[in-house]
Amino acid sequence: MPKRLLIDMDGVLADTYLQFFRLEATVTGKQVLHNDIIGLAEGDAFPNYKKYIHNDGFFRDAPVIDDAVEVMEKLNKIYEIFIVSSAMEFPNSLREKYDWLQEHFPFLHWKQIILCGSKIPVQGDILIDDHFKNLDPFQGKTLLFTQPHNMGRDNGHYRVDNWREIEGVLL
Amino acid sequence: MPKRLLIDMDGVLADTYLQFFRLEATVTGKQVLHNDIIGLAEGDAFPNYKKYIHNDGFFRDAPVIDDAVEVMEKLNKIYEIFIVSSAMEFPNSLREKYDWLQEHFPFLHWKQIILCGSKIPVQGDILIDDHFKNLDPFQGKTLLFTQPHNMGRDNGHYRVDNWREIEGVLL
Repeated sequence: MPKRLLIDMDGVLADTYLQFFRLEATVTGKQVLHNDIIGLAEGDAFPNYKKYIHNDGFFRDAPVIDDAVEVMEKLNKIYEIFIVSSAMEFPNSLREKYDWLQEHFPFLHWKQIILCGSKIPVQGDILIDDHFKNLDPFQGKTLLFTQPHNMGRDNGHYRVDNWREIEGVLL
Repeated sequence: MPKRLLIDMDGVLADTYLQFFRLEATVTGKQVLHNDIIGLAEGDAFPNYKKYIHNDGFFRDAPVIDDAVEVMEKLNKIYEIFIVSSAMEFPNSLREKYDWLQEHFPFLHWKQIILCGSKIPVQGDILIDDHFKNLDPFQGKTLLFTQPHNMGRDNGHYRVDNWREIEGVLL
């Protein structure tokens, strides 16, 4: 039986940080630098981040993180994959996330998508996520995907910086 | 620690059969009777049912099943409740289901909502559902909510006909 692999969306498949950088520059005229926000929660790095997230198109127009499509297509042949994304806090994101996955990951079936509030009841063998609140309570193997907010500590999770590293670990 | 109670939406909280009866009467001019469709899958009872489900408003305008609000409010104080609803096959339903829950069950937090394709990875202690495809593989206690399509067999699940019976079993 294939192992069940749960994969987060924002900050793992979708480059939401690039969206934050863009919106911050547009709205405030200020170019935030990657090095300025290391170790800061998203809300501290971008005080308006909840407003940004509620923008129409925030999720729909997010770029795909490098190499995610190619590695996901390979993983999808070997693992039982589910995309597990926190979306309920931002109900505008529900349809946008569905459409985004259809566009960029057309090889995923709709049965493989889970949009939730809390990820606690969703269980599997492996979880790839960038947030400790999801990784810490997970009972299987965990991969911590590097994003500025999680740099400087790992809480015992195995850190991966990009999709090529995930490929090396899981394939 | 409270027990985790997973609750299906269509056919358990939302009266989707009433929507089918209404649409069938409007579209075909034919009034389907409850007794005519006992034991029939939804697709056999209403050959156009997938078209109906894709109608804007199908989920948003569904009536609430009798006593569900009152009993759910009591259960929500004792159990860790998650609404687990298959929605991905009908992406128009995503926002409609969210808005419907906000309107009729305002005491539920967005963290308690899970919209999915397959329910397999979502685990808990108790599941209330009307479909065997969800109940049969579930590892905890199961309550089979009576709907025309599941009448005549129970696959070993405990059958409940209405929310007062659920109240009697779980409270």
